[in-house]
Amino acid sequence: MPASTEKKIAKEDSETKKVKKKECHRPRDSLFSWSSGFGDFNGFMNWGFLLLFMGGVRLLLENLIKYGIRVDPEQWLIVLTGRQEGGPEHPSIILLIYSIVPVTISLTVERGLSKHVISSRTGLLAHIGNLVVMISVPMIVIYVKSSGFSLIGASSVCFLYSILFLKMWSYVQVNYWCRSRLVQNSKGHMRRQSMSYTKMSNGAVHSSLDGKTDKEDDGGNLVQYPDNLTFKDMMYFICAPTLCYELNFPRTDRIRKRFLLKRLFEVLLLLQVMMSLFQQWIIPSVKNSLIPFSNMDVAKATERLLKLSIPNHLVWLIFFYLMFHSSLNLVGELMHFADRNFYSDWWNANNIDVFWRTWNMPAHKWAVRHLYIPLVGRGYSKTVASGMVFFISAFFHEYLVSVPLRTFKIWAFLGMMGQIPLSIFCKWVEDRFGPRWGNIIVWASLILGQPLCIMMYYHDYVITHFGESLLDRYGRV
Amino acid sequence: MPASTEKKIAKEDSETKKVKKKECHRPRDSLFSWSSGFGDFNGFMNWGFLLLFMGGVRLLLENLIKYGIRVDPEQWLIVLTGRQEGGPEHPSIILLIYSIVPVTISLTVERGLSKHVISSRTGLLAHIGNLVVMISVPMIVIYVKSSGFSLIGASSVCFLYSILFLKMWSYVQVNYWCRSRLVQNSKGHMRRQSMSYTKMSNGAVHSSLDGKTDKEDDGGNLVQYPDNLTFKDMMYFICAPTLCYELNFPRTDRIRKRFLLKRLFEVLLLLQVMMSLFQQWIIPSVKNSLIPFSNMDVAKATERLLKLSIPNHLVWLIFFYLMFHSSLNLVGELMHFADRNFYSDWWNANNIDVFWRTWNMPAHKWAVRHLYIPLVGRGYSKTVASGMVFFISAFFHEYLVSVPLRTFKIWAFLGMMGQIPLSIFCKWVEDRFGPRWGNIIVWASLILGQPLCIMMYYHDYVITHFGESLLDRYGRV
Repeated sequence: MPASTEKKIAKEDSETKKVKKKECHRPRDSLFSWSSGFGDFNGFMNWGFLLLFMGGVRLLLENLIKYGIRVDPEQWLIVLTGRQEGGPEHPSIILLIYSIVPVTISLTVERGLSKHVISSRTGLLAHIGNLVVMISVPMIVIYVKSSGFSLIGASSVCFLYSILFLKMWSYVQVNYWCRSRLVQNSKGHMRRQSMSYTKMSNGAVHSSLDGKTDKEDDGGNLVQYPDNLTFKDMMYFICAPTLCYELNFPRTDRIRKRFLLKRLFEVLLLLQVMMSLFQQWIIPSVKNSLIPFSNMDVAKATERLLKLSIPNHLVWLIFFYLMFHSSLNLVGELMHFADRNFYSDWWNANNIDVFWRTWNMPAHKWAVRHLYIPLVGRGYSKTVASGMVFFISAFFHEYLVSVPLRTFKIWAFLGMMGQIPLSIFCKWVEDRFGPRWGNIIVWASLILGQPLCIMMYYHDYVITHFGESLLDRYGRV
Repeated sequence: MPASTEKKIAKEDSETKKVKKKECHRPRDSLFSWSSGFGDFNGFMNWGFLLLFMGGVRLLLENLIKYGIRVDPEQWLIVLTGRQEGGPEHPSIILLIYSIVPVTISLTVERGLSKHVISSRTGLLAHIGNLVVMISVPMIVIYVKSSGFSLIGASSVCFLYSILFLKMWSYVQVNYWCRSRLVQNSKGHMRRQSMSYTKMSNGAVHSSLDGKTDKEDDGGNLVQYPDNLTFKDMMYFICAPTLCYELNFPRTDRIRKRFLLKRLFEVLLLLQVMMSLFQQWIIPSVKNSLIPFSNMDVAKATERLLKLSIPNHLVWLIFFYLMFHSSLNLVGELMHFADRNFYSDWWNANNIDVFWRTWNMPAHKWAVRHLYIPLVGRGYSKTVASGMVFFISAFFHEYLVSVPLRTFKIWAFLGMMGQIPLSIFCKWVEDRFGPRWGNIIVWASLILGQPLCIMMYYHDYVITHFGESLLDRYGRV
């Protein structure tokens, strides 16, 4: 046995490092233990997005293996022009051209009102009649001449008439405000005149910071009522990417060629991508989902719904970008329209009503300016005013879906009205679990809500137009 | 026509706000335009994880619909105990018990060496012989008595013998270092004795901060060579969750009951989850992938690979947590072992070699302490030393896969050796595209590399054991 002194180990200096290495253990906690205080899990974010990407690639491959290539440009042309059912009549093109009539009526009535040829009561009735007829025309024509319309043709008509309805409403209301002000002016509040004019100018100068206002004004910078009541001004408003009429829109002073070309390229590319996804992915998925939905097979229907939700959500995201960034910016650039606030950061919305306030800014601005504030101004409570906004919104969602499909179900309407309880639920989740979970609920409702509506409409569409027999044939139990 | 003065609009103060509302447009850019300077896209992170979660739920549903419930606890027991093939012999249990023999030989040789009964040359040869025999025994026995081993039984034996091999290597080397130091000490470097002892104590005091060192030492705090050469000390090292031997391990002073119960619960739960995933998801997926792999059908094989990669990766993640957090912490807690550094933050690794240095800390520590530093100390270059580490690592990966499967292919070996070029590629990607992309490459190689290896082994296993006829029967073209 070595002596006790031998136990004391002597080392060379060069060996100190070696001993350090040899003592390779020291007390410490594992990183996943709370007591370690470790919190850097950034790598898992890359992991998440990589898995998502791989999942996408796999779904693409699976789709190609299962269905082959379904993209067929010829088919697009047939669908787009409506040739397959239309014959030589093309009622959708006639309806698109006819839309000039209610617009002209609106302008004529406004001119009459401004020159005191028509009384304000008659004018109001004329406008209401004109608007009601305008929104009803596509419904009636598509119902009567249903065989003449392709789905895309009917959708375009409904879309255009909805937009014109909102634009005309705005046009009439703004001109009414201008007349009211003139009346108040003539009643004699002259002492405030110069002051208020300064205020007005400030706003206008602010608006024209980014460009000159090149209206057909007689020398002055700003167009004043009733000089705005021209066909040219009306046409500018119809084409401008906004639903809210103003006498003096902010303008840009030049068209950026590069910007224009980029947006044009995006529009052309994304349209192809959207239509390809539709043909390749959504149509087969929707067809496959019909039987489980009809059979009320919960597991299969949920699986189908989740499977459908991915391409549907992708198409919706592309549609959003195509519509609200590419197209509206393209039109804005061409029209020298300077306000490009077509969408806000809805992707960060913690509540579904924040989403509705931010994803479609033209519609939101219209709803606030022409519906919410006037209603509140007339003494209605804010809740009633918000409810009214949702109601009108629900009406137009239903209009844009039901009329082209010719299935007068109320799924879209109910879907929109369902946003009100959903918003209360979001609020509760946000208060209880924090804003991140509110945001997740918003995304979940977007990703799952739409395919659910699509399935319901498709199911009812098939049953209405092809009858129960089709379902029976394909294996209803 | 109203007079020119009438164009100047007079307003009530209450109307100023109204006018503000009416001017709803001002020049601004869309958020997706670069010029807007907007960059808050946090909502898309929630979107990504929500899609991932939904994709997971869908895959789960799809799997259940396609295969029904495949989880069968009875089957586990059969697989675990190896009853289905074993008969009454249970060679894997005999081998597990036999492992005590090489351990005892190691201890006996070390005792002989410390008492100068055996010369150091004889001792070295005896150790090498013992280690080579130890690592060969499972190979030979499993090859000879192949019918007696279940896959799990054979895997456990190989796993235990690999770990014992590394532990014994460490044990022998540390004792060799201690002897060398004693020899140097007896040669007379006594003047440094007290100084170096202080250094030694500092390290030890640091180690015992979290607990007392309760070794069977005669009064002193630290065990000194050769008092460590006891069967009890050896058994502690065999059971301790580390591969690196030390005379004085850092110890905890008490067993935290709550912590122990949590880890125990995790082990029990995650074992069930892993086995369920195996039966339910991986086995059907692997079986389905055989034909496309055999036919070299690239699109289908890729789709299968991507589909297999998800459950495989999930099982690997669970395995990692189960092994390196739950089990090792459980053992550590029971053994009063204070160093819980079983893994580092490999999920943030920007290069594959960082991953290999961080995901399995016991093996990494062993490789640095007992292979890399000794090799560098003997004058080999760092590249050669690193290469050697990868080579030994590749050998054990191959050993752990090939021996239980009895298919002596070299996919695992090549997979490990392939990490060297992959690491160079990672470095290039990181330099070129930033650390995030390095991390993504690491994740991609983890997620895709494993299922690729699994498929290759399974394919070769089926061909070796069931012949080409099986493939032909199942539709090889």
